[in-house]
Amino acid sequence: MNASTIRCSKFLSAVICGAIVASMSLSAGGDPVARTETTSVIGERFWPSEFGPDDQRGAANRITPEKIVAAARLITEGRTYQLGRLYEHGMPIPGKRHFSLTIPGLPTGGPLGANQSVWNDELFSGEIGQLGTQFDGLGHIGMRVDGEDLFYNGNKLSEFGDSYGLKKLGVENAGVFFTRGVLLDVCSLRGADRLEAGYVISPDELEACLKQAKLTIQEGDVVLIRTGHGKLWMQDNEAFGAGEPGIGLAAAKYLTDRKVSLIGADNWAIEAVPHERDDLSFPVHQWDLTKSGAYHLENLDLEELAAHKVYEFCFVFSPLRLKGATGSPGNPVAIR
Amino acid sequence: MNASTIRCSKFLSAVICGAIVASMSLSAGGDPVARTETTSVIGERFWPSEFGPDDQRGAANRITPEKIVAAARLITEGRTYQLGRLYEHGMPIPGKRHFSLTIPGLPTGGPLGANQSVWNDELFSGEIGQLGTQFDGLGHIGMRVDGEDLFYNGNKLSEFGDSYGLKKLGVENAGVFFTRGVLLDVCSLRGADRLEAGYVISPDELEACLKQAKLTIQEGDVVLIRTGHGKLWMQDNEAFGAGEPGIGLAAAKYLTDRKVSLIGADNWAIEAVPHERDDLSFPVHQWDLTKSGAYHLENLDLEELAAHKVYEFCFVFSPLRLKGATGSPGNPVAIR
Amino acid sequence: MNASTIRCSKFLSAVICGAIVASMSLSAGGDPVARTETTSVIGERFWPSEFGPDDQRGAANRITPEKIVAAARLITEGRTYQLGRLYEHGMPIPGKRHFSLTIPGLPTGGPLGANQSVWNDELFSGEIGQLGTQFDGLGHIGMRVDGEDLFYNGNKLSEFGDSYGLKKLGVENAGVFFTRGVLLDVCSLRGADRLEAGYVISPDELEACLKQAKLTIQEGDVVLIRTGHGKLWMQDNEAFGAGEPGIGLAAAKYLTDRKVSLIGADNWAIEAVPHERDDLSFPVHQWDLTKSGAYHLENLDLEELAAHKVYEFCFVFSPLRLKGATGSPGNPVAIR
Amino acid sequence: MNASTIRCSKFLSAVICGAIVASMSLSAGGDPVARTETTSVIGERFWPSEFGPDDQRGAANRITPEKIVAAARLITEGRTYQLGRLYEHGMPIPGKRHFSLTIPGLPTGGPLGANQSVWNDELFSGEIGQLGTQFDGLGHIGMRVDGEDLFYNGNKLSEFGDSYGLKKLGVENAGVFFTRGVLLDVCSLRGADRLEAGYVISPDELEACLKQAKLTIQEGDVVLIRTGHGKLWMQDNEAFGAGEPGIGLAAAKYLTDRKVSLIGADNWAIEAVPHERDDLSFPVHQWDLTKSGAYHLENLDLEELAAHKVYEFCFVFSPLRLKGATGSPGNPVAIR
Repeated sequence: MNASTIRCSKFLSAVICGAIVASMSLSAGGDPVARTETTSVIGERFWPSEFGPDDQRGAANRITPEKIVAAARLITEGRTYQLGRLYEHGMPIPGKRHFSLTIPGLPTGGPLGANQSVWNDELFSGEIGQLGTQFDGLGHIGMRVDGEDLFYNGNKLSEFGDSYGLKKLGVENAGVFFTRGVLLDVCSLRGADRLEAGYVISPDELEACLKQAKLTIQEGDVVLIRTGHGKLWMQDNEAFGAGEPGIGLAAAKYLTDRKVSLIGADNWAIEAVPHERDDLSFPVHQWDLTKSGAYHLENLDLEELAAHKVYEFCFVFSPLRLKGATGSPGNPVAIR
Repeated sequence: MNASTIRCSKFLSAVICGAIVASMSLSAGGDPVARTETTSVIGERFWPSEFGPDDQRGAANRITPEKIVAAARLITEGRTYQLGRLYEHGMPIPGKRHFSLTIPGLPTGGPLGANQSVWNDELFSGEIGQLGTQFDGLGHIGMRVDGEDLFYNGNKLSEFGDSYGLKKLGVENAGVFFTRGVLLDVCSLRGADRLEAGYVISPDELEACLKQAKLTIQEGDVVLIRTGHGKLWMQDNEAFGAGEPGIGLAAAKYLTDRKVSLIGADNWAIEAVPHERDDLSFPVHQWDLTKSGAYHLENLDLEELAAHKVYEFCFVFSPLRLKGATGSPGNPVAIR
Repeated sequence: MNASTIRCSKFLSAVICGAIVASMSLSAGGDPVARTETTSVIGERFWPSEFGPDDQRGAANRITPEKIVAAARLITEGRTYQLGRLYEHGMPIPGKRHFSLTIPGLPTGGPLGANQSVWNDELFSGEIGQLGTQFDGLGHIGMRVDGEDLFYNGNKLSEFGDSYGLKKLGVENAGVFFTRGVLLDVCSLRGADRLEAGYVISPDELEACLKQAKLTIQEGDVVLIRTGHGKLWMQDNEAFGAGEPGIGLAAAKYLTDRKVSLIGADNWAIEAVPHERDDLSFPVHQWDLTKSGAYHLENLDLEELAAHKVYEFCFVFSPLRLKGATGSPGNPVAIR
Repeated sequence: MNASTIRCSKFLSAVICGAIVASMSLSAGGDPVARTETTSVIGERFWPSEFGPDDQRGAANRITPEKIVAAARLITEGRTYQLGRLYEHGMPIPGKRHFSLTIPGLPTGGPLGANQSVWNDELFSGEIGQLGTQFDGLGHIGMRVDGEDLFYNGNKLSEFGDSYGLKKLGVENAGVFFTRGVLLDVCSLRGADRLEAGYVISPDELEACLKQAKLTIQEGDVVLIRTGHGKLWMQDNEAFGAGEPGIGLAAAKYLTDRKVSLIGADNWAIEAVPHERDDLSFPVHQWDLTKSGAYHLENLDLEELAAHKVYEFCFVFSPLRLKGATGSPGNPVAIR
């Protein structure tokens, strides 16, 4: 076991979301990187993106008007599936993030007027784009090269970073995801109740799912991957956060080669944890977000969709337009 | 000028959202209600709702599978209109509410691993469902009767209230709004740049808009009303908050009689402020939310939709599933 | 085991601070009070206070100029003991409260000017007066009588409550505690490493401590009680929160009879949990705060003071002037 | 007028606290520094501090036991002066910082038990150490040199920075300020109602104040400077924040030469704004905090102290032990 492995297992006990606990970066004993070779997953020069050097929208550009019209045509029954989980006290939260929702006053105000109007508000505090069901935007993940933190399209954090919201790559640039959605139920393919933490889903397995469903992936699609890991949500939060099955780099490349716009899953980071290579930290995030501009949607509830064998559907998600935010909460919807 | 009028004008200078500033309820000089007759806008006994005595979903129940399929059929061009405004520092915020978005660390964490992964989070603090573009849920507005705060379906706040989220009527019950949307551009009908604050939109004006657009309102529709007031957003925030044009009680009844599911507008409270009757406080809120279970969407951006003369469209909004919250932020979408 | 007992043990597993988890009040099965007799610990008519019917300062009034001068005279060595614990991630936090501290940006701003000035801020979110070392003010604890929540001096919450800060009894009224302090080391008296949870400290034990230290309690004193429970802080947070040794009603009366201004301890609620009478909920809080106007300081670190056998000292604590707050954080100091 | 001047006047309209608005650092038009020579106010090599290369406490080290005992001897009347302002909605807040205080529930919990116990908490959100009366710690201000942000004792932010609290120089290292305090009433010396914004207080004026009061500054003292600017607090918040009178670099050096532990004032940044040299940004902050380890206390209320002509007193301030924070709120006290 080398230093990276140690870091990795520390991570496993503490993290339950699509990122690494901050305390990891603070471990005593100096710079963990100093002891290892750096290995770029995405190349030294991963930009400009195929959408142009100034693009801030990434793979959401693939959702064309034709794609939207075609997605609407998939709605034949009028049935909606809410894929977002409840945001609630006690849900799995990684590291030092927090969730707080309170109602001031009960009622917050009133009564006013002869009609005795009263009202309630709610106060929220927390890492809004990185709690529960969450959408990772292009300002979320980057790579440090020679002391510079590089993000999608080579943007330097030292230039677009701002304590009160990113000046570029904010989630408000993503726009609306109204497109074809495809469910790849790897859990059922494997006949598992749920895949084990660390299970690395391969391209072959994705293909097998497609074949079973008699579907192909098309440009601009949203691909949702069911691992079964979501069954642990609010049932065994410790196990939920301690690791997860998910795709590896090969499957990520398989999906971005097919030009998907977004990859979602019923786990907290899309990719397998522990990772297939223990010297890397969330390489799929870098591949998808930093290099390819393909978005992530984590902590989805895919159980009903799978139970109803809905493998192709109209997918709708409209991120909050939080200016300069790195992610968004949401309640994505599949409609058939 | 009586006591109610005084309260109302104090309100106008201080409020810029779909509710009354809390400080209003704290005015020195004792109970303002004691000096006036109470007048129920919605009757003494406004429940059970037509959706059953235990219903917590209200007019969203009107969105049937058939309605969803029909709405999807309205999508012929594949063009999306984002109706949600940016959530940003400096946007109009009423009373003592606040908005804060920060990025801890820049980057928040990393670099980790040989691939030097770094990441950013964002921290949000604020009245999340009552800031900017906002959806009012059924736990937002009620009426005090004999010391009891009554909400939709007669629910008593003393029973379902909870400091950490409502036990009933939370916004997570609303479900998804995927339905037909209709834009009623009263501002253009009147040939105005924007209607003046206090302008009360009548049922006749709604009908005239429909007639011009050759449309009728159907059960389960979302109706969006353009007043032009939204032009003040981030241009003259003080004027934006000091009052607004909007519907009055007659128009509200006109819409609920036609069984709409949701009413949206480009102002902060749907209804005219100052109100048509100065002894009442937000009577349309009570009529729509408390009695009828019809939802509100406030602070919409309807300019592009109007400019393109898009009067009928597929409307999509999926509220955040914030357990026990009274409202939700969002980026509603019109698609044609 | 009756209904109260059940509630009590549920409480024990969930609470780790000087108050009851909110979820307790929300237990299914209806009003817990309906099944039990009400018993007022403090009488039906516990006001006006001895400091006058309009007083909002309570026992802090006992700290006279003479008292201050006398306290200063206790400083002969110039040694300070910080009694406040660190506010930090991972500290014991009860129920649904939270603590978040982040540094936006790193640096938050700059560089500016030819001198390249940079700066950091910190963002805090949490129940500021009810986390870690905490001072309970007179707006913190009350008693419900006939549907009315009564606080110190008979103030009705329906009249002085406000969603954005109490209109009366706010912590800003307390003023500065610069007075004589006395340490009663019951833990050492009993020869214990730490007293067990539920251990009820008696008046006799307080007297025995005084006798050993050759001291008496004087009007306006601050009395700090060491139980040893504080040794669990950040060592075994679960045990720390699951219960605690502390004073019972008899010892509370003993102290208020001697006209103390404030009672502090190295536990989270001053009083024993489980309580000596299992049908009561935090009766000492009501006795001290609601009836007597005597303040509480919880989660103190008394270890160094005890190790140095400092039983009499100058005590200094200056609550934050948070307008309308129910409590305050702080770093109280003993000086000899 | 050069580029620096332009920046400076932009600052004046936006800032009302002891730091620069973050938006300043984000001005369009590229790096403002590129157009100007850098000028170190504190030298290229300003460390190690006189308290040793590992010291994190700075000038608070000057408060010796003898100093504490002597300060206690200044208490002869037993009168306290609270120097902290109320933290309240509507107070001056700079830039994008915020203040929120709410009471969840009213009551937050209960009633519980036969004694019908109810309780209130308060929820706070905001830049806790940089709002209202505030203490600047050694992690607050630094200088960028060759891309590295250097703080007290040469500590590099890239090494001690952490998104969840600084790993070094946190305010918890400061300890307790119980020492001699001296009031220098420059406002009265000048016969002014209040000094104008931009007025630069000179060493001669400090000496004249001392001479009038027949006092000298001694090592470890806290020096409080009254400018009269505090009269604008909550009276004319815009004018309060638009600039301020205060000390310049010469007076700062005069004070640190005399080895003070802390400098306080009734303004928001201790130093004059606009600065005496318009190419510099908060040079006194760098001189005091970054180089000298001398602390700042801003937004004090010195009116009563001045009215009573209390020029020498026992000063007490105990910062909150917020682990890794850059500052602290508080209610400092002068006692005579």
